Amino acid sequence: MLMADLFGKTLNKEVPIPYYYQLKEILLDYITNHHPDRNVPIPAEVDISAHFNVSRPTVRQAINELVVEGYLVRQKGKGTFVMKPKISQAFLQNLESFNNEMTKKGLEPSTKVIGLEVIECDEKAGDALRIPAGSKVIKLRRLRYANDEPIVYVITYLPYDRCLPIMDKNLEFESLYSILREVCGLSLLKAVRNLEAVLAGEYEADLLDIEKGAPIQYIKSVTYLEDGSPIEYSLAKYRGDRSQFTFELGIR
Amino acid sequence: MLMADLFGKTLNKEVPIPYYYQLKEILLDYITNHHPDRNVPIPAEVDISAHFNVSRPTVRQAINELVVEGYLVRQKGKGTFVMKPKISQAFLQNLESFNNEMTKKGLEPSTKVIGLEVIECDEKAGDALRIPAGSKVIKLRRLRYANDEPIVYVITYLPYDRCLPIMDKNLEFESLYSILREVCGLSLLKAVRNLEAVLAGEYEADLLDIEKGAPIQYIKSVTYLEDGSPIEYSLAKYRGDRSQFTFELGIR
Repeated sequence: MLMADLFGKTLNKEVPIPYYYQLKEILLDYITNHHPDRNVPIPAEVDISAHFNVSRPTVRQAINELVVEGYLVRQKGKGTFVMKPKISQAFLQNLESFNNEMTKKGLEPSTKVIGLEVIECDEKAGDALRIPAGSKVIKLRRLRYANDEPIVYVITYLPYDRCLPIMDKNLEFESLYSILREVCGLSLLKAVRNLEAVLAGEYEADLLDIEKGAPIQYIKSVTYLEDGSPIEYSLAKYRGDRSQFTFELGIR
Repeated sequence: MLMADLFGKTLNKEVPIPYYYQLKEILLDYITNHHPDRNVPIPAEVDISAHFNVSRPTVRQAINELVVEGYLVRQKGKGTFVMKPKISQAFLQNLESFNNEMTKKGLEPSTKVIGLEVIECDEKAGDALRIPAGSKVIKLRRLRYANDEPIVYVITYLPYDRCLPIMDKNLEFESLYSILREVCGLSLLKAVRNLEAVLAGEYEADLLDIEKGAPIQYIKSVTYLEDGSPIEYSLAKYRGDRSQFTFELGIR
């Protein structure tokens, strides 16, 4: 159980940091560095409480926050277990397709197309694509999975006239970027991404199989062609409990 | 009141997207593009309900989600108002100090040092800084503000031997990077950042003046010197309701 690594530590009762928070940091270190077996529960609340000489509610608060943050999961009658690690993604650094990225990680990607329609764009999509509100755009809604677990819900807007061939493609099997490049003959140059941490609403929560109010990494992107014109505006909601994004930046 | 922009739209009752969600998207478009005056409330629930021909609970659900996501705020007896826009940060793209970044945006930055101590590092900080667990490190905890509003809580770990001069500095007024460069004589090369969307625990919520369970952009960074050795490990929790991060990536 490697409990020695957990129970070798103590709380510092002389600093103005709440006990539950110190305990949470100790538990987080323990579960991320010393508890490799996800089939074995972490030590029981009563044992943690006795060792650290803090109340059961203090222990429960630390564990609760690790549960809501997606590090731990409670299983009725069995105990509290370490969650699967988050999927680390280079989406921020490379314009790589979701499928390639998941395949590289040894995960099986799949895609469900929820909607593919031609609509008149609203002002926001029009601004992003630099076309007047009311112009015809393709609106594509996809739910993307890794090993059958939903990871991200993406809404993509594409200018209708330049991306028409999309309408005949099966986007559950073909890559959007490949179609844009190879079928539509477009040269992609760069993307601008905007990130926000938000909470899942009921609709996204249902789609992503998480609780309403769970954390979501919300990434809005505009992809540009070599001639400088925007070709794709997308709104992606990633499950916070399953996603982390890593990238490197040089110092300027 | 520019209500025409809101009430010029209708719900699509033939697609399998919940009414509340369609209404939420319409409201979001309206408040971000057409409702510039934050002192004027948005239209009342009863009027929205009547116009779109949906129930009051449907309207309330759409508004509630926009409230928890930080787009709207309810004021008792006065109505529902548009929140201040999020502060857009280039933190992901430039290794720029918080102070410079806020100043550029016309916001007044300030910093409160919550703790500055020398401790023995745990395994996580040791791994990040490539020193053995138990080595002496400086642990700096800061709360950083824009216009007196707390924006981010940052814990920074620095190897003690290379960063000793930090201990004598007033980090409420001096920039950490300037001290590292100019006083410690270090050449910073690059940073690796890792992002996750998480929920605020009670402790961070208190510090950042938000509700427990509010969204947090959690950014872990390791900064490296030109010789390849890590010099800084930091854990930053940004208020999700006040922060967005934008950056550009070239296509490889």
